[in-house]
Amino acid sequence: MKKKFVIVGLGLIGGSMAMALKGFEGFTIVGVDLSQPTLRFAREHGVGDEVTEDAALAVKGADVVMLCLHPQGILDFLETYKNAFKPGCLVTDVCGIKSAVMEKAGCLPPSVDFIGCHPMAGTEFSGVEHAFAEMFQGSHLILTPRAESTPEHVSLMEQLAEYIGCRDVVKTTPAQHDAILAYTSQMMHIIAVSVCDDENLFTCKGYEGSSFRGCTRVAALDVGLWTQLFSLNAPALTACLDTLLENLKTYRDAVAAGDRELLSSKLAFSAARKREMDLPGPDLLT
Amino acid sequence: MKKKFVIVGLGLIGGSMAMALKGFEGFTIVGVDLSQPTLRFAREHGVGDEVTEDAALAVKGADVVMLCLHPQGILDFLETYKNAFKPGCLVTDVCGIKSAVMEKAGCLPPSVDFIGCHPMAGTEFSGVEHAFAEMFQGSHLILTPRAESTPEHVSLMEQLAEYIGCRDVVKTTPAQHDAILAYTSQMMHIIAVSVCDDENLFTCKGYEGSSFRGCTRVAALDVGLWTQLFSLNAPALTACLDTLLENLKTYRDAVAAGDRELLSSKLAFSAARKREMDLPGPDLLT
Repeated sequence: MKKKFVIVGLGLIGGSMAMALKGFEGFTIVGVDLSQPTLRFAREHGVGDEVTEDAALAVKGADVVMLCLHPQGILDFLETYKNAFKPGCLVTDVCGIKSAVMEKAGCLPPSVDFIGCHPMAGTEFSGVEHAFAEMFQGSHLILTPRAESTPEHVSLMEQLAEYIGCRDVVKTTPAQHDAILAYTSQMMHIIAVSVCDDENLFTCKGYEGSSFRGCTRVAALDVGLWTQLFSLNAPALTACLDTLLENLKTYRDAVAAGDRELLSSKLAFSAARKREMDLPGPDLLT
Repeated sequence: MKKKFVIVGLGLIGGSMAMALKGFEGFTIVGVDLSQPTLRFAREHGVGDEVTEDAALAVKGADVVMLCLHPQGILDFLETYKNAFKPGCLVTDVCGIKSAVMEKAGCLPPSVDFIGCHPMAGTEFSGVEHAFAEMFQGSHLILTPRAESTPEHVSLMEQLAEYIGCRDVVKTTPAQHDAILAYTSQMMHIIAVSVCDDENLFTCKGYEGSSFRGCTRVAALDVGLWTQLFSLNAPALTACLDTLLENLKTYRDAVAAGDRELLSSKLAFSAARKREMDLPGPDLLT
Protein backbone atom coordinates (compact mmCIF):
# COMPACT_ATOMS: atom_id res chain seq x y z
CA MET A 1 0.00 0.00 0.00
CA LYS A 2 1.24 3.49 -0.84
CA LYS A 3 2.35 5.77 1.97
CA LYS A 4 0.08 8.72 2.65
CA PHE A 5 1.11 12.37 2.95
CA VAL A 6 -1.83 14.26 4.39
CA ILE A 7 -2.07 18.02 3.98
CA VAL A 8 -4.58 19.55 6.37
CA GLY A 9 -5.90 22.83 5.00
CA LEU A 10 -5.95 23.50 1.27
CA GLY A 11 -5.51 27.25 1.34
CA LEU A 12 -2.85 29.22 -0.51
CA ILE A 13 0.06 27.40 1.13
CA GLY A 14 -1.53 23.99 1.64
CA GLY A 15 -2.89 23.99 -1.90
CA SER A 16 0.47 25.01 -3.34
CA MET A 17 2.18 22.35 -1.22
CA ALA A 18 -0.21 19.68 -2.48
CA MET A 19 0.56 20.69 -6.05
CA ALA A 20 4.32 20.95 -5.49
CA LEU A 21 4.50 17.59 -3.72
CA LYS A 22 2.81 15.61 -6.49
CA GLY A 23 4.91 12.49 -7.04
CA PHE A 24 7.15 13.06 -4.01
CA GLU A 25 8.77 9.81 -2.77
CA GLY A 26 5.84 7.69 -3.94
CA PHE A 27 3.45 9.27 -1.43
CA THR A 28 -0.24 9.57 -2.16
CA ILE A 29 -0.96 13.24 -1.45
CA VAL A 30 -4.23 13.56 0.46
CA GLY A 31 -5.75 17.02 0.90
CA VAL A 32 -8.10 17.72 3.81
CA ASP A 33 -10.41 20.71 3.98
CA LEU A 34 -13.80 21.50 5.45
CA SER A 35 -14.89 23.93 2.73
CA GLN A 36 -16.92 22.34 -0.04
CA PRO A 37 -15.97 24.96 -2.67
CA THR A 38 -12.30 24.39 -1.79
CA LEU A 39 -12.67 20.60 -2.06
CA ARG A 40 -14.49 20.96 -5.38
CA PHE A 41 -11.82 23.30 -6.75
CA ALA A 42 -9.07 20.94 -5.55
CA ARG A 43 -10.76 17.94 -7.15
CA GLU A 44 -11.33 19.72 -10.45
CA HIS A 45 -7.78 21.06 -10.62
CA GLY A 46 -5.97 17.98 -9.35
CA VAL A 47 -4.70 19.67 -6.20
CA GLY A 48 -3.56 16.52 -4.36
CA ASP A 49 -4.14 12.93 -5.46
CA GLU A 50 -7.17 12.63 -3.20
CA VAL A 51 -9.21 15.12 -1.20
CA THR A 52 -11.53 14.61 1.73
CA GLU A 53 -13.33 16.47 4.47
CA ASP A 54 -12.81 13.64 6.93
CA ALA A 55 -9.76 14.76 8.90
CA ALA A 56 -10.04 11.91 11.44
CA LEU A 57 -9.93 9.22 8.78
CA ALA A 58 -7.15 10.91 6.85
CA VAL A 59 -4.98 11.34 9.95
CA LYS A 60 -5.51 7.72 10.99
CA GLY A 61 -3.91 6.40 7.82
CA ALA A 62 -1.23 9.04 7.44
CA ASP A 63 2.55 8.54 7.44
CA VAL A 64 3.13 12.29 7.30
CA VAL A 65 0.67 15.01 8.28
CA MET A 66 1.41 18.60 7.36
CA LEU A 67 -0.76 21.18 9.07
CA CYS A 68 -1.42 24.12 6.73
CA LEU A 69 -4.01 25.92 8.84
CA HIS A 70 -3.89 29.34 10.45
CA PRO A 71 -1.77 29.37 13.65
CA GLN A 72 -4.70 29.01 16.02
CA GLY A 73 -6.13 26.30 13.79
CA ILE A 74 -2.89 24.34 14.09
CA LEU A 75 -2.92 24.60 17.88
CA ASP A 76 -6.56 23.49 17.97
CA PHE A 77 -5.99 20.64 15.51
CA LEU A 78 -3.12 19.24 17.58
CA GLU A 79 -5.28 19.31 20.69
CA THR A 80 -8.26 17.65 18.98
CA TYR A 81 -6.36 14.94 17.09
CA LYS A 82 -3.39 14.34 19.40
CA ASN A 83 -4.35 10.68 19.93
CA ALA A 84 -5.45 9.99 16.36
CA PHE A 85 -2.02 9.82 14.67
CA LYS A 86 -0.55 6.38 14.08
CA PRO A 87 2.71 5.45 15.82
CA GLY A 88 5.77 6.52 13.83
CA CYS A 89 3.86 9.29 12.11
CA LEU A 90 5.66 12.54 11.33
CA VAL A 91 3.62 15.66 11.96
CA THR A 92 4.80 18.98 10.59
CA ASP A 93 3.36 22.39 9.73
CA VAL A 94 3.98 25.55 7.70
CA CYS A 95 3.29 28.15 10.36
CA GLY A 96 5.04 31.54 10.48
CA ILE A 97 5.55 31.25 14.24
CA LYS A 98 7.25 28.29 15.84
CA SER A 99 7.44 28.62 19.64
CA ALA A 100 3.69 28.40 20.22
CA VAL A 101 3.36 25.51 17.75
CA MET A 102 6.31 23.49 19.09
CA GLU A 103 5.09 23.98 22.62
CA LYS A 104 1.62 22.77 21.72
CA ALA A 105 3.10 19.76 19.89
CA GLY A 106 4.30 18.58 23.30
CA CYS A 107 0.77 17.15 23.70
CA LEU A 108 1.48 14.46 21.10
CA PRO A 109 2.31 10.93 22.34
CA PRO A 110 6.02 9.99 22.31
CA SER A 111 5.53 7.70 19.30
CA VAL A 112 4.54 10.66 17.11
CA ASP A 113 7.32 12.93 15.85
CA PHE A 114 6.92 16.65 15.23
CA ILE A 115 9.22 18.85 13.14
CA GLY A 116 8.34 22.52 12.87
CA CYS A 117 8.53 23.84 9.33
CA HIS A 118 8.19 27.28 7.78
CA PRO A 119 8.56 27.72 4.04
CA MET A 120 9.41 31.40 3.50
CA ALA A 121 6.99 31.86 0.66
CA GLY A 122 3.59 33.35 0.06
CA THR A 123 1.71 36.01 -1.81
CA GLU A 124 -0.72 38.71 -0.76
CA PHE A 125 -3.60 36.44 -1.85
CA SER A 126 -5.28 33.57 -0.09
CA GLY A 127 -7.28 30.50 -1.01
CA VAL A 128 -6.68 27.42 -3.13
CA GLU A 129 -7.61 29.27 -6.31
CA HIS A 130 -4.39 31.29 -5.96
CA ALA A 131 -2.22 28.26 -5.20
CA PHE A 132 0.51 27.28 -7.63
CA ALA A 133 3.10 24.51 -7.67
CA GLU A 134 6.07 26.89 -8.13
CA MET A 135 5.27 28.80 -4.91
CA PHE A 136 8.33 27.54 -3.02
CA GLN A 137 10.93 27.74 -5.76
CA GLY A 138 13.96 29.73 -4.66
CA SER A 139 12.67 30.32 -1.14
CA HIS A 140 14.17 29.37 2.21
CA LEU A 141 12.68 26.48 4.20
CA ILE A 142 13.15 26.77 7.93
CA LEU A 143 13.04 23.68 10.16
CA THR A 144 12.79 23.49 13.94
CA PRO A 145 13.26 19.77 14.69
CA ARG A 146 12.94 18.40 18.19
CA ALA A 147 16.08 17.05 19.84
CA GLU A 148 14.46 13.60 19.62
CA SER A 149 13.29 13.90 15.99
CA THR A 150 14.53 10.89 14.00
CA PRO A 151 17.25 11.42 11.36
CA GLU A 152 14.90 9.77 8.85
CA HIS A 153 12.24 12.39 9.46
CA VAL A 154 14.67 15.30 9.30
CA SER A 155 16.08 13.83 6.10
CA LEU A 156 12.58 13.46 4.65
CA MET A 157 11.91 17.16 5.29
CA GLU A 158 15.18 18.05 3.57
CA GLN A 159 14.23 15.94 0.56
CA LEU A 160 10.84 17.66 0.56
CA ALA A 161 12.54 21.07 0.48
CA GLU A 162 14.61 20.01 -2.50
CA TYR A 163 11.61 18.47 -4.26
CA ILE A 164 9.48 21.63 -4.05
CA GLY A 165 12.39 23.74 -5.24
CA CYS A 166 13.53 25.54 -2.10
CA ARG A 167 16.85 27.33 -2.29
CA ASP A 168 18.05 26.01 1.04
CA VAL A 169 17.12 24.53 4.40
CA VAL A 170 17.86 26.47 7.58
CA LYS A 171 17.63 24.70 10.95
CA THR A 172 17.10 26.76 14.05
CA THR A 173 15.33 26.93 17.40
CA PRO A 174 11.73 28.09 17.76
CA ALA A 175 12.77 31.13 19.80
CA GLN A 176 15.43 32.20 17.30
CA HIS A 177 13.00 31.68 14.43
CA ASP A 178 10.36 33.84 16.05
CA ALA A 179 12.77 36.64 16.94
CA ILE A 180 14.11 36.86 13.40
CA LEU A 181 10.75 36.46 11.68
CA ALA A 182 9.38 39.33 13.74
CA TYR A 183 12.00 41.41 11.97
CA THR A 184 12.08 40.01 8.44
CA SER A 185 8.41 39.31 7.94
CA GLN A 186 5.99 40.53 10.59
CA MET A 187 7.49 44.01 10.80
CA MET A 188 7.34 44.34 6.99
CA HIS A 189 3.61 43.77 7.21
CA ILE A 190 3.18 46.32 10.01
CA ILE A 191 5.14 48.84 7.93
CA ALA A 192 3.00 48.16 4.87
CA VAL A 193 -0.32 48.65 6.66
CA SER A 194 0.98 51.71 8.52
CA VAL A 195 2.02 53.34 5.23
CA CYS A 196 -1.46 52.64 3.82
CA ASP A 197 -3.08 54.35 6.82
CA ASP A 198 -1.73 57.70 5.59
CA GLU A 199 -4.58 59.90 4.41
CA ASN A 200 -2.65 60.60 1.19
CA LEU A 201 -2.99 57.00 0.03
CA PHE A 202 -5.72 57.61 -2.51
CA THR A 203 -4.44 60.94 -3.76
CA CYS A 204 -1.07 59.45 -4.66
CA LYS A 205 -2.30 57.40 -7.61
CA GLY A 206 -0.15 58.18 -10.58
CA TYR A 207 2.80 59.00 -8.35
CA GLU A 208 3.85 55.56 -7.10
CA GLY A 209 7.10 54.04 -8.19
CA SER A 210 8.47 50.58 -7.61
CA SER A 211 9.67 51.44 -4.10
CA PHE A 212 6.11 52.24 -3.02
CA ARG A 213 4.71 49.13 -4.63
CA GLY A 214 7.47 47.01 -3.11
CA CYS A 215 6.90 48.34 0.39
CA THR A 216 3.10 48.23 0.42
CA ARG A 217 2.43 45.09 -1.65
CA VAL A 218 1.75 42.94 1.40
CA ALA A 219 -0.67 45.41 3.03
CA ALA A 220 -3.66 43.65 1.48
CA LEU A 221 -3.12 40.88 3.99
CA ASP A 222 -5.23 38.05 5.38
CA VAL A 223 -6.55 39.75 8.52
CA GLY A 224 -7.30 36.62 10.55
CA LEU A 225 -3.93 35.03 9.82
CA TRP A 226 -1.84 38.08 10.62
CA THR A 227 -3.79 38.96 13.75
CA GLN A 228 -2.83 35.51 15.06
CA LEU A 229 0.79 35.70 13.91
CA PHE A 230 1.31 39.13 15.49
CA SER A 231 -0.47 38.18 18.71
CA LEU A 232 1.35 34.89 19.18
CA ASN A 233 4.70 36.63 18.73
CA ALA A 234 3.91 39.94 20.43
CA PRO A 235 7.03 40.39 22.61
CA ALA A 236 9.52 39.84 19.77
CA LEU A 237 7.51 41.97 17.36
CA THR A 238 7.13 44.79 19.86
CA ALA A 239 10.89 44.83 20.41
CA CYS A 240 11.54 45.06 16.65
CA LEU A 241 9.03 47.84 16.24
CA ASP A 242 10.64 49.81 19.07
CA THR A 243 13.99 49.57 17.30
CA LEU A 244 12.41 50.66 14.02
CA LEU A 245 10.64 53.60 15.63
CA GLU A 246 13.94 54.72 17.11
CA ASN A 247 15.84 54.40 13.82
CA LEU A 248 13.10 56.19 11.89
CA LYS A 249 12.99 58.95 14.48
CA THR A 250 16.74 59.50 14.14
CA TYR A 251 16.35 59.90 10.38
CA ARG A 252 13.31 62.12 10.84
CA ASP A 253 15.28 64.43 13.14
CA ALA A 254 18.23 64.59 10.74
CA VAL A 255 15.88 65.55 7.89
CA ALA A 256 14.02 68.10 10.00
CA ALA A 257 17.26 69.67 11.20
CA GLY A 258 18.36 70.19 7.60
CA ASP A 259 21.78 68.84 8.53
CA ARG A 260 23.09 67.60 5.18
CA GLU A 261 26.35 66.33 6.62
CA LEU A 262 24.63 64.23 9.28
CA LEU A 263 22.09 62.95 6.78
CA SER A 264 24.78 62.06 4.29
CA SER A 265 26.85 60.14 6.82
CA LYS A 266 23.80 58.29 8.11
CA LEU A 267 22.74 57.34 4.58
CA ALA A 268 26.27 56.18 3.75
CA PHE A 269 26.23 53.96 6.83
CA SER A 270 22.84 52.38 6.08
CA ALA A 271 23.41 51.95 2.35
CA ALA A 272 26.72 50.22 3.04
CA ARG A 273 24.97 47.81 5.40
CA LYS A 274 22.45 46.97 2.71
CA ARG A 275 25.20 46.42 0.15
CA GLU A 276 27.08 44.18 2.57
CA MET A 277 23.91 42.27 3.25
CA ASP A 278 23.62 41.81 -0.51
CA LEU A 279 20.54 39.71 -0.12
CA PRO A 280 20.32 36.81 -2.47
CA GLY A 281 17.04 36.17 -4.18
CA PRO A 282 15.08 37.01 -7.28
CA ASP A 283 15.19 40.65 -8.36
CA LEU A 284 12.00 42.51 -7.69
CA LEU A 285 11.87 45.17 -10.32
CA THR A 286 14.58 46.58 -12.48
CA MET B 1 19.82 70.83 -40.14
CA LYS B 2 18.52 68.31 -37.65
CA LYS B 3 17.08 69.53 -34.37
CA LYS B 4 19.17 68.77 -31.33
CA PHE B 5 17.96 67.17 -28.09
CA VAL B 6 20.70 67.61 -25.51
CA ILE B 7 20.83 65.41 -22.43
CA VAL B 8 23.07 66.86 -19.73
CA GLY B 9 24.37 64.12 -17.44
CA LEU B 10 24.70 60.55 -18.70
CA GLY B 11 24.09 58.73 -15.44
CA LEU B 12 21.52 56.02 -14.85
CA ILE B 13 18.56 58.21 -15.84
CA GLY B 14 20.23 60.42 -18.43
CA GLY B 15 21.89 57.41 -20.06
CA SER B 16 18.62 55.50 -20.15
CA MET B 17 16.85 58.56 -21.54
CA ALA B 18 19.46 58.91 -24.31
CA MET B 19 18.94 55.27 -25.23
CA ALA B 20 15.14 55.43 -25.03
CA LEU B 21 14.94 58.63 -27.09
CA LYS B 22 16.95 57.30 -30.04
CA GLY B 23 15.00 58.25 -33.16
CA PHE B 24 12.52 60.50 -31.36
CA GLU B 25 10.95 63.11 -33.69
CA GLY B 26 14.00 63.29 -35.88
CA PHE B 27 16.15 64.79 -33.12
CA THR B 28 19.86 64.21 -32.92
CA ILE B 29 20.38 63.03 -29.33
CA VAL B 30 23.45 64.69 -27.85
CA GLY B 31 24.78 63.43 -24.52
CA VAL B 32 26.85 65.72 -22.30
CA ASP B 33 29.01 64.51 -19.44
CA LEU B 34 32.22 65.60 -17.77
CA SER B 35 33.44 62.09 -16.91
CA GLN B 36 35.77 60.58 -19.48
CA PRO B 37 34.93 56.96 -18.58
CA THR B 38 31.24 57.82 -18.94
CA LEU B 39 31.78 59.47 -22.32
CA ARG B 40 33.85 56.51 -23.49
CA PHE B 41 31.22 54.03 -22.35
CA ALA B 42 28.49 56.09 -24.01
CA ARG B 43 30.41 56.27 -27.25
CA GLU B 44 31.18 52.57 -27.30
CA HIS B 45 27.62 51.58 -26.52
CA GLY B 46 25.82 54.10 -28.69
CA VAL B 47 24.25 55.94 -25.77
CA GLY B 48 23.09 59.02 -27.70
CA ASP B 49 23.90 59.87 -31.34
CA GLU B 50 26.74 62.13 -30.24
CA VAL B 51 28.50 62.74 -26.94
CA THR B 52 30.58 65.65 -25.76
CA GLU B 53 32.05 67.20 -22.65
CA ASP B 54 31.45 70.72 -23.96
CA ALA B 55 28.22 71.74 -22.27
CA ALA B 56 28.38 75.36 -23.47
CA LEU B 57 28.62 74.37 -27.11
CA ALA B 58 25.93 71.71 -26.81
CA VAL B 59 23.51 74.08 -25.08
CA LYS B 60 24.08 76.78 -27.68
CA GLY B 61 22.82 74.61 -30.51
CA ALA B 62 20.05 72.84 -28.59
CA ASP B 63 16.32 72.88 -29.33
CA VAL B 64 15.61 70.87 -26.19
CA VAL B 65 17.86 70.49 -23.15
CA MET B 66 17.05 67.86 -20.54
CA LEU B 67 18.96 68.18 -17.29
CA CYS B 68 19.69 64.74 -15.83
CA LEU B 69 22.02 65.82 -13.04
CA HIS B 70 21.62 65.53 -9.30
CA PRO B 71 19.25 68.16 -7.86
CA GLN B 72 21.99 70.55 -6.78
CA GLY B 73 23.70 70.03 -10.12
CA ILE B 74 20.53 71.11 -11.94
CA LEU B 75 20.25 74.27 -9.85
CA ASP B 76 23.91 75.09 -10.47
CA PHE B 77 23.67 74.34 -14.21
CA LEU B 78 20.69 76.68 -14.62
CA GLU B 79 22.60 79.45 -12.87
CA THR B 80 25.75 78.93 -14.93
CA TYR B 81 24.12 78.54 -18.34
CA LYS B 82 21.00 80.70 -17.97
CA ASN B 83 22.06 83.01 -20.79
CA ALA B 84 23.48 80.31 -23.07
CA PHE B 85 20.21 78.76 -24.31
CA LYS B 86 18.95 79.87 -27.69
CA PRO B 87 15.59 81.66 -27.90
CA GLY B 88 12.66 79.24 -28.17
CA CYS B 89 14.60 76.48 -26.48
CA LEU B 90 12.74 74.09 -24.18
CA VAL B 91 14.60 73.20 -20.99
CA THR B 92 13.40 70.31 -18.88
CA ASP B 93 14.76 67.96 -16.23
CA VAL B 94 14.18 64.59 -14.54
CA CYS B 95 14.54 65.65 -10.93
CA GLY B 96 12.63 64.01 -8.06
CA ILE B 97 11.82 67.38 -6.52
CA LYS B 98 10.15 70.15 -8.44
CA SER B 99 9.63 73.27 -6.29
CA ALA B 100 13.32 74.07 -5.91
CA VAL B 101 13.97 73.38 -9.60
CA MET B 102 11.01 75.40 -10.92
CA GLU B 103 11.92 78.28 -8.67
CA LYS B 104 15.51 78.28 -9.92
CA ALA B 105 14.29 78.09 -13.53
CA GLY B 106 12.88 81.58 -12.96
CA CYS B 107 16.40 82.82 -13.73
CA LEU B 108 16.02 81.86 -17.41
CA PRO B 109 15.24 84.62 -19.91
CA PRO B 110 11.57 84.86 -21.04
CA SER B 111 12.42 83.42 -24.46
CA VAL B 112 13.46 80.10 -22.89
CA ASP B 113 10.69 77.73 -21.74
CA PHE B 114 11.01 75.38 -18.80
CA ILE B 115 8.80 72.36 -18.08
CA GLY B 116 9.54 70.36 -14.97
CA CYS B 117 9.59 66.63 -15.58
CA HIS B 118 9.90 63.61 -13.32
CA PRO B 119 9.84 60.11 -14.80
CA MET B 120 8.88 57.80 -11.93
CA ALA B 121 11.50 55.22 -12.75
CA GLY B 122 14.88 54.12 -11.49
CA THR B 123 16.77 51.29 -9.95
CA GLU B 124 18.99 50.98 -6.90
CA PHE B 125 22.04 51.30 -9.17
CA SER B 126 23.70 54.35 -10.67
CA GLY B 127 25.89 55.19 -13.63
CA VAL B 128 25.62 54.86 -17.39
CA GLU B 129 26.73 51.22 -17.27
CA HIS B 130 23.41 50.37 -15.60
CA ALA B 131 21.32 52.42 -18.02
CA PHE B 132 18.84 50.65 -20.30
CA ALA B 133 16.38 51.84 -22.90
CA GLU B 134 13.38 50.11 -21.30
CA MET B 135 13.81 51.99 -18.00
CA PHE B 136 10.67 54.10 -18.40
CA GLN B 137 8.29 51.50 -19.77
CA GLY B 138 5.11 51.31 -17.75
CA SER B 139 6.06 54.15 -15.41
CA HIS B 140 4.33 57.44 -14.71
CA LEU B 141 5.78 60.66 -16.11
CA ILE B 142 4.98 63.74 -14.09
CA LEU B 143 5.04 67.20 -15.66
CA THR B 144 4.97 70.59 -13.97
CA PRO B 145 4.61 73.06 -16.84
CA ARG B 146 4.71 76.79 -16.28
CA ALA B 147 1.49 78.73 -16.89
CA GLU B 148 3.26 80.31 -19.86
CA SER B 149 4.72 77.08 -21.30
CA THR B 150 3.77 76.78 -24.97
CA PRO B 151 1.26 74.09 -26.01
CA GLU B 152 3.85 72.85 -28.51
CA HIS B 153 6.36 72.22 -25.75
CA VAL B 154 3.83 70.53 -23.48
CA SER B 155 2.75 68.39 -26.41
CA LEU B 156 6.37 67.49 -27.17
CA MET B 157 6.83 66.26 -23.60
CA GLU B 158 3.68 64.15 -23.92
CA GLN B 159 4.97 62.64 -27.16
CA LEU B 160 8.27 61.97 -25.41
CA ALA B 161 6.45 60.12 -22.62
CA GLU B 162 4.68 57.95 -25.17
CA TYR B 163 7.88 57.35 -27.12
CA ILE B 164 9.85 56.09 -24.14
CA GLY B 165 6.95 53.84 -23.11
CA CYS B 166 5.49 55.61 -20.08
CA ARG B 167 2.13 54.39 -18.87
CA ASP B 168 0.71 57.87 -18.49
CA VAL B 169 1.43 61.57 -18.04
CA VAL B 170 0.34 63.34 -14.87
CA LYS B 171 0.37 67.15 -14.73
CA THR B 172 0.56 68.85 -11.38
CA THR B 173 2.02 71.77 -9.46
CA PRO B 174 5.53 71.69 -8.00
CA ALA B 175 4.19 71.90 -4.43
CA GLN B 176 1.70 69.06 -4.94
CA HIS B 177 4.39 66.96 -6.61
CA ASP B 178 6.80 67.44 -3.74
CA ALA B 179 4.21 66.70 -1.06
CA ILE B 180 3.13 63.46 -2.71
CA LEU B 181 6.63 62.34 -3.64
CA ALA B 182 7.72 62.77 -0.03
CA TYR B 183 5.15 60.08 0.71
CA THR B 184 5.42 57.70 -2.25
CA SER B 185 9.14 57.79 -2.80
CA GLN B 186 11.28 59.60 -0.26
CA MET B 187 9.61 58.00 2.75
CA MET B 188 10.06 54.54 1.18
CA HIS B 189 13.79 55.18 1.09
CA ILE B 190 13.86 56.37 4.71
CA ILE B 191 11.96 53.23 5.72
CA ALA B 192 14.37 51.00 3.79
CA VAL B 193 17.50 52.47 5.36
CA SER B 194 15.93 52.51 8.84
CA VAL B 195 15.08 48.81 8.56
CA CYS B 196 18.68 48.10 7.53
CA ASP B 197 19.98 49.93 10.61
CA ASP B 198 18.57 47.14 12.82
CA GLU B 199 21.41 45.19 14.37
CA ASN B 200 19.72 41.95 13.27
CA LEU B 201 20.30 42.73 9.60
CA PHE B 202 23.19 40.34 9.10
CA THR B 203 21.85 37.54 11.29
CA CYS B 204 18.64 37.35 9.29
CA LYS B 205 20.20 35.85 6.17
CA GLY B 206 18.24 32.78 5.23
CA TYR B 207 15.09 34.18 6.78
CA GLU B 208 14.12 36.89 4.32
CA GLY B 209 11.02 36.55 2.22
CA SER B 210 9.78 38.70 -0.61
CA SER B 211 8.26 41.28 1.77
CA PHE B 212 11.70 41.98 3.26
CA ARG B 213 13.35 42.18 -0.13
CA GLY B 214 10.57 44.43 -1.43
CA CYS B 215 10.82 46.83 1.47
CA THR B 216 14.62 47.09 1.68
CA ARG B 217 15.58 46.87 -1.99
CA VAL B 218 16.11 50.62 -2.33
CA ALA B 219 18.29 50.93 0.80
CA ALA B 220 21.47 50.60 -1.26
CA LEU B 221 20.87 54.11 -2.49
CA ASP B 222 22.98 56.83 -4.09
CA VAL B 223 23.97 58.77 -0.97
CA GLY B 224 24.70 62.11 -2.64
CA LEU B 225 21.48 62.11 -4.64
CA TRP B 226 19.20 61.21 -1.77
CA THR B 227 20.85 63.59 0.68
CA GLN B 228 19.95 66.37 -1.74
CA LEU B 229 16.42 65.12 -2.43
CA PHE B 230 15.63 64.77 1.27
CA SER B 231 17.19 68.12 2.18
CA LEU B 232 15.48 70.07 -0.59
CA ASN B 233 12.09 68.66 0.44
CA ALA B 234 12.60 68.54 4.20
CA PRO B 235 9.30 70.07 5.42
CA ALA B 236 7.07 67.76 3.36
CA LEU B 237 9.18 64.71 4.18
CA THR B 238 9.23 65.50 7.89
CA ALA B 239 5.44 65.78 7.90
CA CYS B 240 5.07 62.38 6.20
CA LEU B 241 7.49 60.76 8.62
CA ASP B 242 5.58 62.19 11.58
CA THR B 243 2.39 60.60 10.26
CA LEU B 244 4.17 57.30 9.72
CA LEU B 245 5.66 57.33 13.19
CA GLU B 246 2.21 57.91 14.64
CA ASN B 247 0.59 55.12 12.60
CA LEU B 248 3.40 52.69 13.42
CA LYS B 249 3.17 53.58 17.11
CA THR B 250 -0.57 52.83 17.13
CA TYR B 251 0.10 49.39 15.66
CA ARG B 252 3.00 48.84 18.06
CA ASP B 253 0.75 49.60 21.02
CA ALA B 254 -2.01 47.30 19.77
CA VAL B 255 0.51 44.46 19.38
CA ALA B 256 2.09 45.12 22.78
CA ALA B 257 -1.31 45.23 24.49
CA GLY B 258 -2.16 41.79 23.09
CA ASP B 259 -5.58 43.14 22.10
CA ARG B 260 -6.55 40.78 19.26
CA GLU B 261 -9.86 42.50 18.64
CA LEU B 262 -8.26 45.93 18.23
CA LEU B 263 -5.47 44.51 16.10
CA SER B 264 -7.92 42.66 13.89
CA SER B 265 -10.10 45.71 13.30
CA LYS B 266 -7.07 47.88 12.57
CA LEU B 267 -5.69 45.33 10.09
CA ALA B 268 -9.08 45.01 8.41
CA PHE B 269 -9.20 48.79 7.99
CA SER B 270 -5.68 49.07 6.52
CA ALA B 271 -5.94 46.01 4.27
CA ALA B 272 -9.23 47.31 2.84
CA ARG B 273 -7.55 50.63 2.04
CA LYS B 274 -4.79 48.82 0.19
CA ARG B 275 -7.31 46.73 -1.75
CA GLU B 276 -9.26 49.87 -2.65
CA MET B 277 -6.08 51.54 -3.74
CA ASP B 278 -5.50 48.53 -5.98
CA LEU B 279 -2.35 50.00 -7.38
CA PRO B 280 -1.84 49.52 -11.07
CA GLY B 281 1.55 48.50 -12.27
CA PRO B 282 3.70 45.47 -12.83
CA ASP B 283 3.52 42.76 -10.21
CA LEU B 284 6.58 42.58 -8.05
CA LEU B 285 6.78 38.99 -6.99
CA THR B 286 4.16 36.30 -7.17
